[in-house]
Amino acid sequence: MEQKLHTPEGVRDIYNKECETKLALQKKLNTVLHLYGYKDIQTPTFEYYDVFREEIGSTSTQELYKFFDREGNILALRPDITPSVARAAATLFENEDFPIRLCYAGNTFINHSSYQGRLKENTQLGAELIGLDSIEADAEMIAMVVDGLKKTGLKEFQVSIGHVDFIKGLLNVADLQEEESREVRTLITNRNFFGVEELLDSKNVKESMKDAFRILPELAGGPEVLEEALKAAPDLDARLGINRLQQIYRLLKLYDAEDHVTFDLSMCGSYGYYTGVIFRAYTYGTGDAIVRGGRYDHLLEKFGKSTPSIGFAIILDELMSALNRQKITVETFHQNLIVYTEATEKRAVSLACSFRGKGRNIELIKREPEEEREVYEAYARRTGVSALLFLRDDEKIEMVNLKTGEEKIIDL
Amino acid sequence: MEQKLHTPEGVRDIYNKECETKLALQKKLNTVLHLYGYKDIQTPTFEYYDVFREEIGSTSTQELYKFFDREGNILALRPDITPSVARAAATLFENEDFPIRLCYAGNTFINHSSYQGRLKENTQLGAELIGLDSIEADAEMIAMVVDGLKKTGLKEFQVSIGHVDFIKGLLNVADLQEEESREVRTLITNRNFFGVEELLDSKNVKESMKDAFRILPELAGGPEVLEEALKAAPDLDARLGINRLQQIYRLLKLYDAEDHVTFDLSMCGSYGYYTGVIFRAYTYGTGDAIVRGGRYDHLLEKFGKSTPSIGFAIILDELMSALNRQKITVETFHQNLIVYTEATEKRAVSLACSFRGKGRNIELIKREPEEEREVYEAYARRTGVSALLFLRDDEKIEMVNLKTGEEKIIDL
Repeated sequence: MEQKLHTPEGVRDIYNKECETKLALQKKLNTVLHLYGYKDIQTPTFEYYDVFREEIGSTSTQELYKFFDREGNILALRPDITPSVARAAATLFENEDFPIRLCYAGNTFINHSSYQGRLKENTQLGAELIGLDSIEADAEMIAMVVDGLKKTGLKEFQVSIGHVDFIKGLLNVADLQEEESREVRTLITNRNFFGVEELLDSKNVKESMKDAFRILPELAGGPEVLEEALKAAPDLDARLGINRLQQIYRLLKLYDAEDHVTFDLSMCGSYGYYTGVIFRAYTYGTGDAIVRGGRYDHLLEKFGKSTPSIGFAIILDELMSALNRQKITVETFHQNLIVYTEATEKRAVSLACSFRGKGRNIELIKREPEEEREVYEAYARRTGVSALLFLRDDEKIEMVNLKTGEEKIIDL
Repeated sequence: MEQKLHTPEGVRDIYNKECETKLALQKKLNTVLHLYGYKDIQTPTFEYYDVFREEIGSTSTQELYKFFDREGNILALRPDITPSVARAAATLFENEDFPIRLCYAGNTFINHSSYQGRLKENTQLGAELIGLDSIEADAEMIAMVVDGLKKTGLKEFQVSIGHVDFIKGLLNVADLQEEESREVRTLITNRNFFGVEELLDSKNVKESMKDAFRILPELAGGPEVLEEALKAAPDLDARLGINRLQQIYRLLKLYDAEDHVTFDLSMCGSYGYYTGVIFRAYTYGTGDAIVRGGRYDHLLEKFGKSTPSIGFAIILDELMSALNRQKITVETFHQNLIVYTEATEKRAVSLACSFRGKGRNIELIKREPEEEREVYEAYARRTGVSALLFLRDDEKIEMVNLKTGEEKIIDL
């Protein structure tokens, strides 16, 4: 017998209840996306490296899993599905003038450079609305996120909405170098506002500008912060961005989604390709966002079709860990067990076929005549079986409902 | 605007009707596996190379997609999910004495060395029954394949069953070298029986032995060929193998599956790890098998747990192309479209919310007041929409059923 082999670091086996929950969640969320008219698309697990090259603005190329095909081309496992869908849509729907609604579920792969116990393979489920630059499109996306998260059983969650033009305006007006801007963004993302102030001090940024950065932490909350943000808006683009958020909020009320919506003007986008509205959903039980999304109006043109778009991805593994910590259970299927002997085999198979025909899940186990019911009852209990049917050789069935403890004997 | 990027060779985008069909099929088949008590498992998309090393008997290691992790370990995209499930089961269910029923759906990756237009990324859906070496286990597997294929709408298909010990016995008794045996196997797999005869002639194999090989093409058909095979069986193992097939056939009658079952003693297993009963399902419209399965009693011990097993995988892409050529359509979901203007936006969103609450899929499109219904009707027709609700500014809705052509005006 040989030595055990484990899974590579950052990837894992998902099984039993956790796997059932994951698949049930995926089904629920996919149903919601269909309700909004989104159509499934599947793109390949790997693409030419160029689909994720640095200027695309996806995950850092240093964190891609790269390999070669037989012709020597560089391939990469997708770290994010949006660039793949953008590539596919630019090609497959090249001449479509109507908006294109696409949704997907698939795994993404990031070879994290710093070890932090983070998963390297994640399941994401997302939607992309291609061909529309409108507040209706933005509101539909956010309403779908709220609707989807509600359907998972989650009660306490917030979709935090921002706009890339706010921070961009601040950085422009502050007249910082490229490298300094990046540093400031990182500090803001980590909510290290003290660090921001220190950095601005060292760069001799004008006092009035520093004030604009200083109020950033206050620009997070209900719709009222949009009024504050309007006053602090560094330029026209930032003001237009905030106006847009106000209009989106008006539409979100029509969707009855406003209770789960907040704003945060200090938000920087997760991806370089974001160009307008950005949003993330948070809940307690997980530090990371469970949904990430935003508008990416210039991504498709990198693949040959010039058209605006907005999309989001639900990070299923994060959502599952949040549900788990909040002790929210997702309904999965029931399992039943029929135990029989050589003598009752014919009856057992026919019984199983008939139950399965009615949609009941039946596991069949053959026992030796001397084996007692207790052994199988213990197994049934241990594996979450609902009902045990123990076929006796005397044409009778001992039935145990493991949920209620009820027992009865059925004559056949 | 930049240049279009296509997908790497052998992988592709799946979208629109094809994607809906694929997902609907997957759901149907997964439901069948649940009916038999199988529980979902997901293993990582890539594993340590060792999980698929040559002696495991999966796909040739030359056809693996290989790459490195940050520590320099070799990783490989899975070419086949059975070794991964075997690895996982040997570790996760190390101390389980009861049979373990696992099922999965996932993509597999083979970097084919010879270009034949074959897909390099395939979706497979399969089941593994671990811990049982019994005719009941074998019959359950085959019954599930028959049940599953029936539920997809397929009517004409056959599960062809063989046993590795028959050919193995012939090759043993013929006293051929390793290399010659491999050659004979390849010839038999390609059903080139004339080539087999030529090769045996050149090796001075005894005439009585050649006769045994000569009748191979006749050992395919209904249960009656098992009688013939018993007479031609080269050794005890081959005879025991055929006896087992006879017992399995008896059980398959209990499952009402015998109409879709034939035998073929000339069958060689697709994978090196197969040890007993092997089977494949075929239908017209595709040359390749749509299901491949077999018993692999020594695979788990390579991962640290000594226990017998049997499993199969449905090759979804092959199944889809067969259904498509047989013009069998799989029921997918309905799509409806609501078209509105700025003036009717509030009503449109509330109507959409109410329909979605009842489980109806609604796509929302905002139009300019001057745009006519015809444009949207054409779009609806083109994209397979069932019903179009065209909101007029005068509080009326023009409703078109695109399946029946029926039109009506609804007053709100």
